[in-house]
Formats: sequence, C-alpha cells, structure tokens
Amino acid sequence: MLGCGVVGSEVARLILADSVELSTRAGVKIELVRIAVREIMARPGIPQELFTLDAESIVNDPSIDLIIEVIGGIEPARSLILKAISNRKSIVTANKALLASHGADLFTAAYAQGEDIYYEAAVAGAIPIIRPMRDSLAGDHVVRLMGIVNGTTNYILTKMHENNREFADVLAEAQKLGYAEADPTADIEGFDAAAKAAILSGLAFHTRVAVDDVYREGISQITLGDVRIAKSMDHVIKLLAIAELTPADEISVRVHPVLLHKSHPLASVRDAFNAIFIEAESAGPLMFYGRGAGGAPTASAILGDVVAVSRHIALNSIGQRETDYADRDIASIETTKTKFLMRLEVQDKSGVLAAIAQTFAEQDVSIQTVDQNGRDDDAELIIVTHGATEGELKATVEALKKLSIVTKISSVIRVEGSTSL
Amino acid sequence: MLGCGVVGSEVARLILADSVELSTRAGVKIELVRIAVREIMARPGIPQELFTLDAESIVNDPSIDLIIEVIGGIEPARSLILKAISNRKSIVTANKALLASHGADLFTAAYAQGEDIYYEAAVAGAIPIIRPMRDSLAGDHVVRLMGIVNGTTNYILTKMHENNREFADVLAEAQKLGYAEADPTADIEGFDAAAKAAILSGLAFHTRVAVDDVYREGISQITLGDVRIAKSMDHVIKLLAIAELTPADEISVRVHPVLLHKSHPLASVRDAFNAIFIEAESAGPLMFYGRGAGGAPTASAILGDVVAVSRHIALNSIGQRETDYADRDIASIETTKTKFLMRLEVQDKSGVLAAIAQTFAEQDVSIQTVDQNGRDDDAELIIVTHGATEGELKATVEALKKLSIVTKISSVIRVEGSTSL
Repeated sequence: MLGCGVVGSEVARLILADSVELSTRAGVKIELVRIAVREIMARPGIPQELFTLDAESIVNDPSIDLIIEVIGGIEPARSLILKAISNRKSIVTANKALLASHGADLFTAAYAQGEDIYYEAAVAGAIPIIRPMRDSLAGDHVVRLMGIVNGTTNYILTKMHENNREFADVLAEAQKLGYAEADPTADIEGFDAAAKAAILSGLAFHTRVAVDDVYREGISQITLGDVRIAKSMDHVIKLLAIAELTPADEISVRVHPVLLHKSHPLASVRDAFNAIFIEAESAGPLMFYGRGAGGAPTASAILGDVVAVSRHIALNSIGQRETDYADRDIASIETTKTKFLMRLEVQDKSGVLAAIAQTFAEQDVSIQTVDQNGRDDDAELIIVTHGATEGELKATVEALKKLSIVTKISSVIRVEGSTSL
Repeated sequence: MLGCGVVGSEVARLILADSVELSTRAGVKIELVRIAVREIMARPGIPQELFTLDAESIVNDPSIDLIIEVIGGIEPARSLILKAISNRKSIVTANKALLASHGADLFTAAYAQGEDIYYEAAVAGAIPIIRPMRDSLAGDHVVRLMGIVNGTTNYILTKMHENNREFADVLAEAQKLGYAEADPTADIEGFDAAAKAAILSGLAFHTRVAVDDVYREGISQITLGDVRIAKSMDHVIKLLAIAELTPADEISVRVHPVLLHKSHPLASVRDAFNAIFIEAESAGPLMFYGRGAGGAPTASAILGDVVAVSRHIALNSIGQRETDYADRDIASIETTKTKFLMRLEVQDKSGVLAAIAQTFAEQDVSIQTVDQNGRDDDAELIIVTHGATEGELKATVEALKKLSIVTKISSVIRVEGSTSL
C-alpha cells in the first residue's frame, strides 16, 4: 500500500483483521506486506514493521502482486503507479484527481501490461457505482447521469433548506465541525465534483473525459433567498454533476447548482450523503445512494476492489476494461440547452413585465412562468424559461441589464429534471 | 437462448441490433445463434430461422458457449441448465423461482465445471444488485438488508397512500391495467418477494437460504384504516423483504408489511419501482433504486451479464463465485424481535387502558406509545411496542382476546427502521 492516512489506516486495519475471510472470498491468500509512508509513526492497530519510507521498494518488489494507492494528488502517485504497472502489478486506487487528469494514460499503461486498474473508491466513496456502470450496464446505453457527488456542498445546501440559514453561516459551522476544509474552494466551487464528473462521464459514454472538459460552477453564489424561492416552487437546490448525450451526439458534462423538483429521487438525498441517478435506454432510471466519503466507507470500496483484483491475479485473468471506442466530442456549454430560473429586481410600475417579456422574446428565450412579488417601490420578478442555450441566456442577461427598469439580476440558476420520470 | 417471452424477445432484439457494440465491450464476438421456443411463430424483429422447438439441441451443441435461460419456473429450466453446465456452457438466467429453490445445486454444478452462472435479472429487474453485493461489497460485512422487491404490491400500497383507496379497489384496477396478474397471490401474499429475499440473503450473508426458510406475510390484510394511522404517525406501510444478522449470529429472513418512517430512503420509493437498502459494517447505508420488472429493464440486466460472462469465456476465466462458507442458521420468526403497531377496538370506559397495559406487561412486552381515539361507545387504542419477539406478541394477542373490554384486534403490523440512520 502507498500512503496511510485516514483511508489507508482503515484499509490496513480491515485487511489485517479480516484476511482469512477476504482470502476465502477472493479464492487466494491476501496479505498486506508493506506500507509506504512519509513519516514512520505509531498508527493504532498497524504493526510498525509494515511501514517503510521507501515507496520505490514496494513498486519494484517482485514478490508484490497488487498495489493499493491512497496517497492522493498527482505526484508521486502517478509515477509510482506507472512504475508498478511496468513491473506487472495490478492497481487499486482511490485517487480521483489523478484519474480525472491522467486516467487515459494509466488505463493505457495497465492494459498494455494486462493488469487491472480498479478505482471504485475514487467516486462516491462506499457507493458501488464504477462496477455497476462498467459491468452491469455493459449491455445498455446510458443517456443521462446526474449525481450528488460532493458531500460538503450537499450538507451545506441541506442546512440552508432545513434550517433557513445563509450559506456563509452554514459553511463556517461546517468548517468548525470538520465537514468542510479550512480552504473550502475545492468543494464549494465544484472542483471536486468536476473531477468525479469527468470519471463518471467517460465511463458512462465509453469515451475519455478530462477534468478540463467539465463546465463548472459552485454554490457560493446561492443565497437563502434562492432557497426560499425554490421551496415555494416545490423544488430544492442541489449541486449536481451532470453528463448527457446531446441531440448532436456529443456529451455535455457539467457541474453547477440546479433547481430540482422535490419529487425527484435526488431531491431527498440529505446531508453529506451522495447519490448518482442514471437513465439508460433499456434499464430506465436507476439510483445509487450512500456515504460518499469517510475512512470506513472508502475502505469498503477499496477492499471490494482488492478482492476482485486478487481473484483476477490468481486466475491469471483481468476484469472489464474501460473503453473509449465511442470517442465522443464534448459539447460546449454555450450550446447546452437547459431551463433557467432568473430573479430580477425591477421598478414596480406598469409596463415593466411587458418590456422584460419583450427582451426575452428578442433573444429567442421562451418564458414558461412569471411570478411577481411586490415590495414597496421595487418588485421581484421570478421567471422560469423553457429550454435555452447558455449563449441565448447570456445575451438575454446582457440585454436586461441595459433596461433602466431592471435594478438588479439577483440570480440565474438552471432548472433540471429527469426526462423519463 | 431458452425461451422467448416478453423478456426473451427484448434480449434477442437488443443482441441482434447491438451485437457490434456488445462485442466491442466484451472483447469477443457475441452472436445469438438459436432460440428454443414452445411454439414457432412470428416475433417482430427476430428472424424466424433462429427458432427451434428442440431445446436439447441447444444445450447439447458444442459450438454454443453461453446459454441465456428465460423460460422461468422449475422444469424444464432446471434440467436444461444442468445439462448445459455438464456440457461446459456458462449460464445467464433470470429465473428467481429456480434459484430460490435449487440455487445451491446449480452453483455447485457450475463451479465444479468452472462455469459462470450469472443472474442479475432474477432480482429487482434492471437494478444492479447482485454484482454490487457479490463483488463491490466483497471486502465488507452486510449486517442488514431491506428491500422493496415486488412492484405490484408497492404500486398498490402507493395508491392506497396517495389516493386514499381501499386495497381491493386498487387491486382490481391494477388487474385491469395489467399491473397485477389475474391470480395475484404470488405478488400480494409475498411469495415473489420471498423468493428474492432467499437469493439476496444468501448472497449478503455468504450462506445458503432457500425460499422455504423465509417467513412470509402479504399485504391483503392491510386496510385503508391502517394506512391512515401510519400516515398520522409520519410513517408509510411498505411490503419489505428483510434479512439481518441476529445477536445470536443467525440470520432472520422475512417478508411482511412494515410501518416505515417517512424519512427512511425506502419510504419515498413509489409505484412499481424497486429499491434495496443495505447496511454494511464499513460502507454504512447504501440504496439501489430502479425498475424491478418489465421487458427492457430485465433485458438490460441480462445483457450486462452476457457481456461479463462472454468476456470470461474469452479469457478462459470465471467471475466471482457465490460462497456459502458462513453456513449460518436461520433464526425462527418466533424469536425475532421487532416493534409492533397494534390497533384495538375497546369499550370506552375507565380502567380499560390500565387493564390492557397490565396484559402487555404480563407478557413482558413493553409499550412505547399509546394513542386513544374515542368514538361513541367504543374507542380505538393504537399501541406501539418496544422490540418484542413474535412469540411474546402472539401471547399478548391471545391474552388480550380474553379480555371482555377488547372488542376487536383490528391490526398487528411490524414497525421497522434503520438502526444506523
């Protein structure tokens, strides 16, 4: 094993405690023989003699068959994994950042050597999602995927909805409780979710998607006002990773906040839980739900991979590979069509609605509903559009800003729903 | 392929339409060469020359590597599968009745020959549940499993809850719409769910469970009155398949209606959808949701298995096997502890509650809550107990029946919830 942090320690303890049963299930003896760490110190339940500071000695050891990589980040994880593969070792990794940026290289290297590279733990923690998508849906065609894949943001949004609290307030509390990092950018601005979106969408659509292909917006702009409006419309606001086939047979891959109707199965996923909702041609809608992070849940996913890969090693076989034969183009966000909710502060006088409706019409954006809340001299207009492209929407926003009657555009949030529900 | 009904026709059409892509994914050419049917007739999209009346000719054909069995029922499916295995063919089957009654024999025969027997479609249709439990959770320990695994009963209960209709009324409509069989016994009395419970619990606990080991009650006794009481307590009534480890390290496997708190993820599974909720030691709670029946969803599961098994055949390998090393005893329902809701019609006079509470106490059944609805001369008592065994509960019911103040015991329904939520 390379690395021994929260997840690695849990993996080590479970293998040591449970090696007989794990070996029975794999049909071959599984033994943890060495752990590379940056600093040798006591870790409860793990014998000191397993530790080494020399990671190279592990990836070069001919008696080792399988490497568990839980260092995280790009280097040295990438180089060590490639070295291990070139030495004919199979890989189990939880490293989403590495897979989202260098996945194609790793897969190519592993398959060239006939080795497995398994990574169930890299996306959505304990939730079996990689194997169901790669293996169970191997006879089907995914058309759309929507996931709550970041626990921190889902926790924050849940508290905003249920306790009527502002974003900054909940974030500060989450940081104090250890649910959010001191620098929460990776979570709240959607970078973490974007890496997972890249991995999931490549798998779903049999193509390669890198994290830079993923359009990304976070939740730091979402206000309690937005949440209240969403609730009044029987919706919730969720940060979703979305990947879908477009009419032009490209794939649109994006992470952003959405208004989701409360009857959607993802709408009731609360707190730090993760869930992935998939629509496939034959299977129809599917959802996978569970804990997306944490030592024990992530270790559960890693150990499932360790048993499977050990079995392949014993049988001199290899599991289902990632495929990229479909080689699809990534749709530009500018051409991606979604519905939008827009909150506008406007002067409360006659003719305002007509002028605004005219502006939408000039940009070819069709309005589905308008709701008007008067308050003193100002009024708030809440507009939901029919499907419009990002480009059309941006042009509409620019045109609205030029109207003197528009005081402020408070929010623009996408509205999503399943097409087949 | 053996059989060509609703599911089989869909499987055939999908393989014929998609054989290039399926073959790419499997890494080996997949070709549908023959289909055994009872009667040769035109089936849209399937060339007539694929059909044969002679199923033996398929299972004995040395050029065939893989058999898809979609006949259903015990015979001739069982004999044909065993013959195919003895001729070194791998098996993909959707036959829950056969697996629930003869699974152990089939697994033993297949593994003795080094052949796969895959059956993702046998439980919960399109939902990937067999593979996640067998492979993804191979490094974890399941402690509890609760599933909505019968679409017909979930549809009926959903309509009772949402439209305030009586059981018989909804059942009649479901029969007219084709959602329920003319003879609905297998669904509404829980036989179908019991077969699935046997398969899932064997897999979850690495032991063999036959359908006769499963305690079973259906939903035909559930009234609109029960549903209303449940709703007033923020619960819903669901028919669940439940399997759990007992404190004595046995497994309790049962199918019966339960009151489930509306915040439980299973509570919002509506209509004919299926979902399986699993609690594992490391992973924590997981849920898998989707369509549990129908031609296309079931075909999706079968084709995923066909791709996996084809790959194993090409690699001269074999997938993860079912294991029964744990060899656990089945707990008697008499000793299984759950909470119960009891509705009693009693005479509305002073001292009644004291007498009834005394009766519960004498049987060692502890009362958690009592709610009393007066109406004319009678009153209804709604009692929820703390955990009690079936035996204790039955003794309490018998003792209550002897009290002159008890007019009627209208309902006794178990109350379940997740221990780790």
